[in-house]
Amino acid sequence: MVAQVEYHSRVQAEVTQVVPKNHTHTYTFDQLPLQRGGQLGPVTLAYETWGTLNARGDNAILITHALTGSAHAHDVENPDDPKAAWWNLLIGPGRVFDTSRYFVICSNILGGCYGSTGPSSIDPRTRRPYGMRFPLITMRDMVHAQRRLLDYLGVRELALVAGGSIGGQQALEWAVTYPEMVRKTAVIAATAALTAQAIAFNEVERQAIMADPHWLCGDYAPGQGPTTGLAIARMLAMITYQSEEAMEMRFARNPTQREAAPSPTFSPELGGRFDVENYLYHQGESLARRFDANSYLYISRAMDLYDVSDGYPSLEAALQRIRGKVLFVGIRSDFLFPAAHVRWLADKVRSLDGDATYVELDSPHGHDAFLKEWHQLAEALRQI
Amino acid sequence: MVAQVEYHSRVQAEVTQVVPKNHTHTYTFDQLPLQRGGQLGPVTLAYETWGTLNARGDNAILITHALTGSAHAHDVENPDDPKAAWWNLLIGPGRVFDTSRYFVICSNILGGCYGSTGPSSIDPRTRRPYGMRFPLITMRDMVHAQRRLLDYLGVRELALVAGGSIGGQQALEWAVTYPEMVRKTAVIAATAALTAQAIAFNEVERQAIMADPHWLCGDYAPGQGPTTGLAIARMLAMITYQSEEAMEMRFARNPTQREAAPSPTFSPELGGRFDVENYLYHQGESLARRFDANSYLYISRAMDLYDVSDGYPSLEAALQRIRGKVLFVGIRSDFLFPAAHVRWLADKVRSLDGDATYVELDSPHGHDAFLKEWHQLAEALRQI
Repeated sequence: MVAQVEYHSRVQAEVTQVVPKNHTHTYTFDQLPLQRGGQLGPVTLAYETWGTLNARGDNAILITHALTGSAHAHDVENPDDPKAAWWNLLIGPGRVFDTSRYFVICSNILGGCYGSTGPSSIDPRTRRPYGMRFPLITMRDMVHAQRRLLDYLGVRELALVAGGSIGGQQALEWAVTYPEMVRKTAVIAATAALTAQAIAFNEVERQAIMADPHWLCGDYAPGQGPTTGLAIARMLAMITYQSEEAMEMRFARNPTQREAAPSPTFSPELGGRFDVENYLYHQGESLARRFDANSYLYISRAMDLYDVSDGYPSLEAALQRIRGKVLFVGIRSDFLFPAAHVRWLADKVRSLDGDATYVELDSPHGHDAFLKEWHQLAEALRQI
Repeated sequence: MVAQVEYHSRVQAEVTQVVPKNHTHTYTFDQLPLQRGGQLGPVTLAYETWGTLNARGDNAILITHALTGSAHAHDVENPDDPKAAWWNLLIGPGRVFDTSRYFVICSNILGGCYGSTGPSSIDPRTRRPYGMRFPLITMRDMVHAQRRLLDYLGVRELALVAGGSIGGQQALEWAVTYPEMVRKTAVIAATAALTAQAIAFNEVERQAIMADPHWLCGDYAPGQGPTTGLAIARMLAMITYQSEEAMEMRFARNPTQREAAPSPTFSPELGGRFDVENYLYHQGESLARRFDANSYLYISRAMDLYDVSDGYPSLEAALQRIRGKVLFVGIRSDFLFPAAHVRWLADKVRSLDGDATYVELDSPHGHDAFLKEWHQLAEALRQI
């Protein structure tokens, strides 16, 4: 316990309340009816845009982010630094998401903690953070909220909606929910629904968060959340975002030579520390500093629950709604969203006379390749 | 916290101190010098035997168990019940481990909690359980301890040593450490050393255990251990013992229809419970009832640290020590000990003029296939 209390103090001491950067805007609307019942309001979405919307409102590209992402997909001050924003190198003048021709939008998802309404937001009924009183939200709710934002911005048609991981789930959901509004869709490292194995990993992550005594059934004070549990959850998630092959290339069985990152709990001297362990501690700590644990619970659950066929008579009926072109991108070494499932979905859409293309990234980096393989991604996206 | 305290009470209330069954014997010796320094003593090994040792002492088969296993590999009262003992169907008169011809031995490993000396044993210096004062132990130490037991039993030569998972690591270690004593070896679902990914999973499991406030740096009272943490660790381990394919076949995305198992922490109503989640809760609870958390830490660490080349000039130098025949068995869908790595090791032994055979089990059940695919296993083992 002593080690944990120390970890909690150390990590939390440096947590800064997440303040959207200057170039992040917000849009607030009154009420959002929710797919699984009830409604949520008021709802704020934090967003960023790059480029200019044309008079017809039809040159917009919507970029949808992954579990712990934010609206900051591109950084105009540091456009060439891949770490300055999560899809930085794909966005900009002349790039695949060409801001000289398109109006590119990215919003923090509903349920998130980077400026959009989520479990850490103030519940107007109680004037305290929602915590676990936040309603159950789905990918469809996230997409409905994004639609409200686009209406507000004057977007009448999307030239493209693109995202990876749960961003890919959102992109697919856009194509099915609002087919009349979407000309092209890029579904990257995402499938029609999660596998049992992926649900299982997510549930272990959630249990690790909820097992932390600082979680307090979700009612921790701002900046005083379950850092140990969230760090352990992130350690596991990072394994699932990579691959056996990538971890072997990067870490193998090397003892760590790097600066020792603090471990979430205790680090007994059981024969030294492997480099892969130190890396995971570092990743765990980074997320614990920057992310809200309850947001993690809600968003990862929305990921589990996502099934594109939800509410339709069949998967086919859902996919037949798609009107535009769809690019599906699988990653050879992805085991969270296996390439075979992405390919299967592309084939399914094609078998229903949809205009689907499948491209596979030949990358050892696992699921994370959608945040790393800039060149291959750009090549793939140019095919749509 | 409330949910966790309830879980802890409920699960611990039913923990019975592990008492070796009547047919389990023990052997105690004074001191064991340890690979990584220091020594441990006295050391007790719990073991079971089936069949009769011949006068020459050379018809013995040693069976080595996996992480949470015990000496109870076979159950003479229920020889046909696969759940009555972990390799039950492979052992018995006329079976692949033929007790009418061989003297079959299985001992609980050093560091275990089923009758052998481990972290829950009483430290003679303090008259309290060792806890985390137990010394760091390795696979080689476990094998050295087994050797002492075999000497005591009068075994002069092993007709076969066979095990799966870390039992396979022990079998390989036997072939390299005591080549003059081993005629045949079966290394099943095990490799020369763990991958970075497998070490990473193990470390997440250990962190989950150590994050539990009941762990108390290992100084919990007997039967009062970190049940929540151990259950979460087991949930993760169970994913790594299976495969995406197997989980899809068994659970897919089905909501659970079974009796609700208690979740290790809290089970907020986030859209219902998937069958795979309920299964993992059940598995977590079962292990938390029966296993010692500190044993889990020490044995899983020995698994990480295992490298057959340790202490030899090279991997080749280690493998060249092997004299007898070695059967390597990989499992197509195993991602903890990938089949490609098992095959690579077999090829390596063969390239050094060793007598190695490789057989691959065509099973969707992942690592766990070594505890499930009775027919294929028996077929494979008959090839040696």
